[in-house]
Amino acid sequence: MHWQPTKQHHISLHTQIVEWIATRIASGDFPIGMQLPTQRALAMQFNVNRSTITSALDELKARGLLEAYVGRGTFVTASPWHTLLPTPNWQQHINDSIHKPNIDTIQLINDYEPNEQMIRLGTGELAPSLLPRTALQQSLASITLDEKLLNYCEPQGSIALRQAICAHVEKRGIITTPRNILVVSGALQALQLIALGLLQRGSIIFQPSASYLNSIHPFQSAGMYMRTLDDVTTLTSLPHAAQSLYYAMPTLHNPSGYTWTDEERKTYYTVCQKLALPILEDDVYGELSFQPTQPLKAIDTTGHVLYVGSVSKTLSPGLRIGWIIAPEAVITRLADVKMQTDYGSSTLSQQLVTHWLTSGKYDAHVATLKETLHVRAQFLHALLLHHFQDLASWEQSTGGFYIWVRFHEPVIQKSLFLSLLQQNILIHPGYMYELNDFHHIRLSYAYASFDDLTTGIEQLAKAIKRRTY
Amino acid sequence: MHWQPTKQHHISLHTQIVEWIATRIASGDFPIGMQLPTQRALAMQFNVNRSTITSALDELKARGLLEAYVGRGTFVTASPWHTLLPTPNWQQHINDSIHKPNIDTIQLINDYEPNEQMIRLGTGELAPSLLPRTALQQSLASITLDEKLLNYCEPQGSIALRQAICAHVEKRGIITTPRNILVVSGALQALQLIALGLLQRGSIIFQPSASYLNSIHPFQSAGMYMRTLDDVTTLTSLPHAAQSLYYAMPTLHNPSGYTWTDEERKTYYTVCQKLALPILEDDVYGELSFQPTQPLKAIDTTGHVLYVGSVSKTLSPGLRIGWIIAPEAVITRLADVKMQTDYGSSTLSQQLVTHWLTSGKYDAHVATLKETLHVRAQFLHALLLHHFQDLASWEQSTGGFYIWVRFHEPVIQKSLFLSLLQQNILIHPGYMYELNDFHHIRLSYAYASFDDLTTGIEQLAKAIKRRTY
Repeated sequence: MHWQPTKQHHISLHTQIVEWIATRIASGDFPIGMQLPTQRALAMQFNVNRSTITSALDELKARGLLEAYVGRGTFVTASPWHTLLPTPNWQQHINDSIHKPNIDTIQLINDYEPNEQMIRLGTGELAPSLLPRTALQQSLASITLDEKLLNYCEPQGSIALRQAICAHVEKRGIITTPRNILVVSGALQALQLIALGLLQRGSIIFQPSASYLNSIHPFQSAGMYMRTLDDVTTLTSLPHAAQSLYYAMPTLHNPSGYTWTDEERKTYYTVCQKLALPILEDDVYGELSFQPTQPLKAIDTTGHVLYVGSVSKTLSPGLRIGWIIAPEAVITRLADVKMQTDYGSSTLSQQLVTHWLTSGKYDAHVATLKETLHVRAQFLHALLLHHFQDLASWEQSTGGFYIWVRFHEPVIQKSLFLSLLQQNILIHPGYMYELNDFHHIRLSYAYASFDDLTTGIEQLAKAIKRRTY
Repeated sequence: MHWQPTKQHHISLHTQIVEWIATRIASGDFPIGMQLPTQRALAMQFNVNRSTITSALDELKARGLLEAYVGRGTFVTASPWHTLLPTPNWQQHINDSIHKPNIDTIQLINDYEPNEQMIRLGTGELAPSLLPRTALQQSLASITLDEKLLNYCEPQGSIALRQAICAHVEKRGIITTPRNILVVSGALQALQLIALGLLQRGSIIFQPSASYLNSIHPFQSAGMYMRTLDDVTTLTSLPHAAQSLYYAMPTLHNPSGYTWTDEERKTYYTVCQKLALPILEDDVYGELSFQPTQPLKAIDTTGHVLYVGSVSKTLSPGLRIGWIIAPEAVITRLADVKMQTDYGSSTLSQQLVTHWLTSGKYDAHVATLKETLHVRAQFLHALLLHHFQDLASWEQSTGGFYIWVRFHEPVIQKSLFLSLLQQNILIHPGYMYELNDFHHIRLSYAYASFDDLTTGIEQLAKAIKRRTY
């Protein structure tokens, strides 16, 4: 819903909004039973006063197109066609369907992030200026398209890319073969394939308390349960129920930023091994550690670790290229599921990533990127010291994109999120990662410019200190 | 498993095979409980005599790594490490997991298609020579990468591409807006998003008897049921159970090649509308009709039709770009599920497709392609007349890739598939599309060269006539 009424129009804002909504309803775009956003949200969306919304909705109610129920909201009731022709009850379809919706805050973030007016304080992306656009553009002109790769690709992904990934991960201590690699369309798809191809309804995913996994639903939508487990060593036997999995981000955990010590790596690996509990190692930030680190997969001698990597946090998320490294039987299975899901990842993207990995361009770019991120991390740290020294605590970043700030008081409420949204500032509140956490906020130094960071953090401080929400 | 022993090696084939399998088992690649392929399949795979396989397996059994059960097959029983360290029981994970595996024949097809030795008689791809490689290469050098599109894309896909799709589908009579379009990674992903985002476990998918849908499992793996319904007008009321859907390919049905008449279009649409039964219109071959046709979506005034299109059959499957056109509430929902699935489709692919659609290159290419396909269709028809006039019946192709040939006798058995595979010929038997259909074969004139088509059909005829399988 990116439409907005035009102020210069000869038709009033009120009438423009009424006609727009009526047309949506008539065309079936807004199906019977659909709940409209709140008046406040509509006012924001259309960039008009709330009173304009109230009067527009009143007219639509009078026309019999909408109905309001106190405490429940406003719903579409009928369309001019509905009396003549039945339409599918899409809202019922959506309500009864399998996949969980994103939580409201995340849907708003997804909707508003493409808006260039927004100051994005928490986003999991690199600033456009940190992406090597010119160099990527040049390599597009220089790579020779492989005829075979214009067609459907082999199930595990292009062999050239899998060979390049082998050589690449070896630098971080992982010894593997192309047969043990599946190319995927980003790390998120890896999680979905693992859910569908290795787990069953009722399977349990163990993870630390605050987790990126709570902001998406690849496992829950497949009927699996998430269990919080901050310390895996407390687990001495596994529940009988079902095939389980331990989800870990040993390097630069999202959102906390924590990296396991060598000792923790060994302890966790040994415990999981004793329990025959597979570990899903999400290592998408691993290459961005300011100090050298080693993935868990590097010490895995028994095929316990399903390793997930990606170029989304380093090179370009738009390419949608990641990889799973696992025992061959697992890879064969996941490749088969992937062939039934999307018939492989973009071979154009695969060829570009192959070129970057094998030409040395990728390593050179990541080295520079880490230096830039380090400077940005220090800048954000300084801003936080200035504004929040007495109100919150945090660790200095050791890599990646984020600082995970804990306020002493539970001030990071949804009302803060919405209030800042009205000032064109987007934040990632802690409750996205743990339902009842109103103390934390995930701040990112990777996206916003220094000016935007300064303004954004200032506004955040103002809102929190004056409690204007 | 693309490894093969080397004949020039100083180590015997037998020992190379034993060591290779033992290493796979030791590394966890072949987990305990995994079933090995049959001796026949292994012999083909390794390109050795069956006696070499037998002796290699015997040695591995003697070492205690494999165990054979009469009538069930050969299984991995232990690894050198297993006595010391427990490993996850991956085979159990796979067996108990949610997603259905591809049927064996399709897995074999997926595995063998990348092999350049194969003559591919049924494949759903264009020959490399029909793909505009040079022109695509040139446009790569000429497009300017959009900085924004190197990052994560907006949920529904790039706005430029959605606008281009609007203008494109309008030529076939579909009037829509960018808000009603979701860019997806190919038509198969569209089906999966619809399964997860609009349907529920127990939902029923109605479809004609022989169907491409039976060769993949996006709905079944999500707990839905497929119901055969060759004539939708026989349906006067819907079963109460659950939200249902009618899956249709009104233009160039896969595999039958049938295109609905105008009258059928109207009848089907009216019936589904009366039942409030949504129609999923899969139109991936629609643009390749030799005569002008109109999609069902073009006569849809009530948002009944979920329309799916793609560039995979026309431009390049490797790009992985398709689209869904549907009411806005549906698109918003499916975009939200897609954001939880793969965070959008490759923006590099999106930019290339936008360039092709807006520059006129796409239409010019498709026009030439249709002429070429028409010539190829006539060539295959002539070959069939020559070899099978008395044995089978078929319709002349009116577009797309295929001729759906029905043999009077049930000769298209799995043994024929395997026997031809050994001669490096891949076919798509009818039983891939309807479980007990041994009469049909889907032949494609889109991929194999005229020489390969001639040889391949000749071998097929020889096998069928001499019953050598």
